[in-house]
Amino acid sequence: MAPSPRQASPELQQVMDECREKINKTLEKMLTKGDWAEAPLWDAMRYGVLNGGKRLRPFLVMQGAKIFGVDEYRARRVGVAVELLHSYSLIHDDLPAMDDADTRRGKPSVHKAYDEATAILAGDALLTLAFEVLSAPETHEDPRVRIELVSELASAAGGHGMVGGQMLDLLGEQEEFDIGTISRLQRLKTGKLIAFCCEAGAILGKANPAHRQALRNYAHDLGMAFQMTDDLLDITGNPAEMGKDAGKDEDAGKATFVSAMGVEAAQSRAQMLCQQAKSHLKIFDYGRADMLHHVADYVLQRRV
Amino acid sequence: MAPSPRQASPELQQVMDECREKINKTLEKMLTKGDWAEAPLWDAMRYGVLNGGKRLRPFLVMQGAKIFGVDEYRARRVGVAVELLHSYSLIHDDLPAMDDADTRRGKPSVHKAYDEATAILAGDALLTLAFEVLSAPETHEDPRVRIELVSELASAAGGHGMVGGQMLDLLGEQEEFDIGTISRLQRLKTGKLIAFCCEAGAILGKANPAHRQALRNYAHDLGMAFQMTDDLLDITGNPAEMGKDAGKDEDAGKATFVSAMGVEAAQSRAQMLCQQAKSHLKIFDYGRADMLHHVADYVLQRRV
Repeated sequence: MAPSPRQASPELQQVMDECREKINKTLEKMLTKGDWAEAPLWDAMRYGVLNGGKRLRPFLVMQGAKIFGVDEYRARRVGVAVELLHSYSLIHDDLPAMDDADTRRGKPSVHKAYDEATAILAGDALLTLAFEVLSAPETHEDPRVRIELVSELASAAGGHGMVGGQMLDLLGEQEEFDIGTISRLQRLKTGKLIAFCCEAGAILGKANPAHRQALRNYAHDLGMAFQMTDDLLDITGNPAEMGKDAGKDEDAGKATFVSAMGVEAAQSRAQMLCQQAKSHLKIFDYGRADMLHHVADYVLQRRV
Repeated sequence: MAPSPRQASPELQQVMDECREKINKTLEKMLTKGDWAEAPLWDAMRYGVLNGGKRLRPFLVMQGAKIFGVDEYRARRVGVAVELLHSYSLIHDDLPAMDDADTRRGKPSVHKAYDEATAILAGDALLTLAFEVLSAPETHEDPRVRIELVSELASAAGGHGMVGGQMLDLLGEQEEFDIGTISRLQRLKTGKLIAFCCEAGAILGKANPAHRQALRNYAHDLGMAFQMTDDLLDITGNPAEMGKDAGKDEDAGKATFVSAMGVEAAQSRAQMLCQQAKSHLKIFDYGRADMLHHVADYVLQRRV
């Protein structure tokens, strides 16, 4: 029987589950409990990170690294750093002054489970920890590799990256953005971090420029498709499955691809982008990039 | 005429002024204006950073680096990274959910001049930018030096560093801390970043372990003295000179050295610590650490 068109293929699902398990174990180890006086901060960090996330970003890191035969432990450390950073961004995005979201994946958001001050600090500490993890020798024995990872992640996550995108997201509630600005918003808010994930394996594996560029191109198209399906899910998704309210972006008057181009055009554009994403993977030997191939189909078909 | 006992010596003042000028120029260059859509974020970042700060932390970096003959431009880049990070911490500390401070150095704090969401994001972006600056090749040609700077700064600033200290600061408003926990609070909140500043020159200059340890010891004592004088100024300072309200920590029921040991004991302990800080500098050749010597006197005598 063919897999449901709206689910990950059984093979992809299994590899993603395995990856999630490994990442969660490493995260749990890293966010240890202790009897230090600042323990409540670390409790909130753990709560914000170990929250049932899909770990799609670490999955991209690990699959990209696999193409170049990178040691799995190293790829996992980079995946963990990305997930720490991604978790910080969700904690801060949920704050009352930002998206004011009371729940995240069906559970109280960090500022609801703890308080606002603790949530701000937990985010700050997770962002900082991401760079601490990347800079440690366990991540890679070559300091040139580690410093390139730090540099690329900082650039992807900063004021002309993810944080800049979140700023645009907030500004988009007040002004009408043209499609060019919406594209910039999405590229900054989610695209650049996804690009980092896909390129990280090439950095770890010291890949040649053509291979690195192929992954960058793949990431660009995948990231755009991911954002479009995110916007579509906000309109068409099932709140119970998603663990958050549907229509929240629309209610907030957010600037999204769907609001700018309509549901059907966004759907067909997402489809086209996923095809294009997969075409960039042809440069790799047979089988090496299979999972990245599957993940492009998955992004198109995901329900949550 | 001898300099007023409560002012920096004219020589120190001149060197500090020169340092401040250089740091401000580099910061202004780095926080460029542009017509990108996310410009409001960068406006808030600039506002939060270019606010008349004394730039004491970059001064420590540059004076430490001078001992080892490090190129001034490199030391300045590290000083700038520290100041970006320090500025982020002030912006987040001032937020309504944290210290709820409407003013900073006599001007509206960032969330008052802009709004809360922008202030949170400006802080996030400045923290990220600090790591981007350190990781760039202009900071040092040796990637081992750059990655060590990243690693040490992340550790000093994170959940068992500055952010952990801020968490303790907030917890201290609700619970009575013993002197041991207050020491931990201060070491984390301000001590570790000051230690990084003093050690950064040793990292840049690939100093021998004994020299690096001497700077670490100096930083430890200086940092404690700095925090004690900060607490003392909160009680005895002149609000007009400080640009913030005196007695604010006391009103908030914050756990400070002064609340735990009283004004006089804190004064004499700060004095003792500054003496001790200076004694660690004896290892350096005559004249090399003069400014660090002076700065210990300055910390004891500062009024703002």
